[in-house]
Order: sequence, then structure tokens, then C-alpha cells
Amino acid sequence: MRVLGVDPGLTRCGVGVVEGVAGRPLTMRGVGVVRTPADAELGDRLVAIERGIEQWLDEHRPDCVAVERVFAQHNVRTVMGTAQASAVAMLCAARRGLPVALHTPSEVKAAVSGSGRADKAQVGAMVTRLLRLDAPPKPADAADALALAICHIWRAPAANRLQQAHAAATAARATPRVPRTAAVPVRKVPR
Amino acid sequence: MRVLGVDPGLTRCGVGVVEGVAGRPLTMRGVGVVRTPADAELGDRLVAIERGIEQWLDEHRPDCVAVERVFAQHNVRTVMGTAQASAVAMLCAARRGLPVALHTPSEVKAAVSGSGRADKAQVGAMVTRLLRLDAPPKPADAADALALAICHIWRAPAANRLQQAHAAATAARATPRVPRTAAVPVRKVPR
Repeated sequence: MRVLGVDPGLTRCGVGVVEGVAGRPLTMRGVGVVRTPADAELGDRLVAIERGIEQWLDEHRPDCVAVERVFAQHNVRTVMGTAQASAVAMLCAARRGLPVALHTPSEVKAAVSGSGRADKAQVGAMVTRLLRLDAPPKPADAADALALAICHIWRAPAANRLQQAHAAATAARATPRVPRTAAVPVRKVPR
Repeated sequence: MRVLGVDPGLTRCGVGVVEGVAGRPLTMRGVGVVRTPADAELGDRLVAIERGIEQWLDEHRPDCVAVERVFAQHNVRTVMGTAQASAVAMLCAARRGLPVALHTPSEVKAAVSGSGRADKAQVGAMVTRLLRLDAPPKPADAADALALAICHIWRAPAANRLQQAHAAATAARATPRVPRTAAVPVRKVPR
């Protein structure tokens, strides 16, 4: 499984590609940051993020995109920009029919370090070790994107079992109905 | 001037097109709602909103898109979805090189009703009167989108004068530098 992790942000959007399966050593396929100038118009910044994410999707052809789940509670000053950048990443993935997974920051920290309260340095150190890198990826947004991808690879088997159980339970009590996704066909290019 | 107003939302995204200039009677060119099913995946909902907004842009060819400015402070439960829907609307506009304007809910209410605290019924009644409609547009999101477009047409002359004054002041103190938008070229189609 190849996963593109996205740590969304308007100024710096971390991106990292990790390949592997749970229980075996993982491999980093790429890491970087999509940047947009703080003094540009918001709409133009979103266009620049879209272009950057599209390049990463074109180059690495991931099977899935994992995006950090944004909460309104904290970082009120920057949270709207983060939510908007995450929307662009999700849009780019869904437009190609790629599954989009959201993981919270504490899920990601817990997955790579064992603690949901790990700090940036700890996450960076574990990403370096787990991907057998020479040094922690810089900036922290890039390391966080890799941590997201690792988290997704490790959580995916459990998440799939949950989904299957939920689907089975839903099917068991189902009356005939329209499939859930029927109203939203996904096309690769929306025009 | 023809303006597409967008009242962003994941479940109901209000859209309305108004044509005219400040100081003269305005004309409604279209009004509606882009809906997405609440039980669809978030990425697929954003794709559906993108498709809907693109159809409105294709059909009405506005000169400008006015989007409600979203704040993190209130409606914490729905604010993230609103921010993400607004990102898609801004992205669609900026990708075509259309100017994007953001107006706060109280600016919109004050513009159409004289009070920044007007309720939905008051805004609906004023939109109906100002656009000489037979009845208030339903649902409220559609009326809000028209109010946004009206607000933008009425505020644009003042905003333009402010921008020109700002540009003149900046030019007066400028040392030679790269144009602000140089790092973010806008293309109509991002691929």
C-alpha cells in the first residue's frame, strides 16, 4: 500500500509518501512541502495548493490519501486556513476516486510514538527511525505528513475490519435502498 | 457587474447571481442550492460542490465571486464543513482568474437591511424587494447567497477606491520588488 500523507496548511502544507504494509518495514518514497506566499490572495493560495497536491498525486500514484483531521477548538487563528487547505487535499484525492482517510493529531502521535501527547521532536525521531532515514525530515510539517502516512498504514487493517463489520451489520438490518454513494459519482476530471 | 454569491455549506450551498451597479436597480439572474448527501464521504461531498459551482460559473459567467467569510468562533459543530465548502468555491473562482471577495454575515445584513443583526426573515424580505421578486427565495441559504451578491455590488465601489488608495500608497514607498502575485500564476485548468 502506498499512502500520501498530507499535513494541511496554507503557508506550509506537508506531504509525504510511504509504502508498505502493517508489520513489515516501511519505505519513504518522497517528502516535501507545498508552500504558498502569505501575502497572496486566499483563492490563489488554494489554487497553488491544488497544483502542488496534483503534482504529488501524479508523480507518486498513491492508493490512498491520509489527511490530518482539523478541529475547530484549538488554534482559532489558523484553523480556518488549515481547514481550507485540507479541503483542497481531500478534493484532489476524491476527484481521482482515491479513498481519503482522516486521522487526528493524537492518533498519529500515538501510532508512531506510543503516546498521543508526543512532541514534535519525538514524532520526528520516530519517523526517522521507522523509515530508516539519516536525519529527521525538515520542516516539522514534512515529518508530520510522513507520520500520518505511517499511521494510516498501521491503522488501515483495523479500520477495514471495522468497516466490514459495520457494512455487515447495516446489510443485515437493511431495507432495500439506494446505495450510499449513488448521488455523488466521482469523476477523475470534473469538467 | 455580474456577481455570483455563495453561502457556503456542505449540506446546502446557496448560490445566487445578481447583475447591476451600485445606485441602480439590480436584477437576479439565477438562484439555487448545491446539495450534497449528509451520509456521503467528505471528499465526495467536496467533489459534488466543485461540480455544482463549476456549473454555475459556466452558465452565468460572473465577473466576480462573493463568498461569506467564515469565522471559527461560532457554530463550532458545522464551521469546519462551512470552511471546507468555502475553500472549494474560492478555488473554483481563482482557478478561472475571477476575483474572490469575502464579506462577513453582518456586512451582508447591514448592506441589505441597514442592520448587522437583521434576522433571516428580514434579509429574505429585503432581497425580495431589492430584486423585485414575487416571493422570498427558499431556502434561506439561497436568499443569503443573493444578499451576498447584492452586498458585493454595493460595497465594490468603496472597496475599489480603498484598494486604489492602498496601491498608490504602496507604490509611493516601494523599492523595486517582485510583483505580489508572481509566485502564484492562475491557470484556468490546473492540470
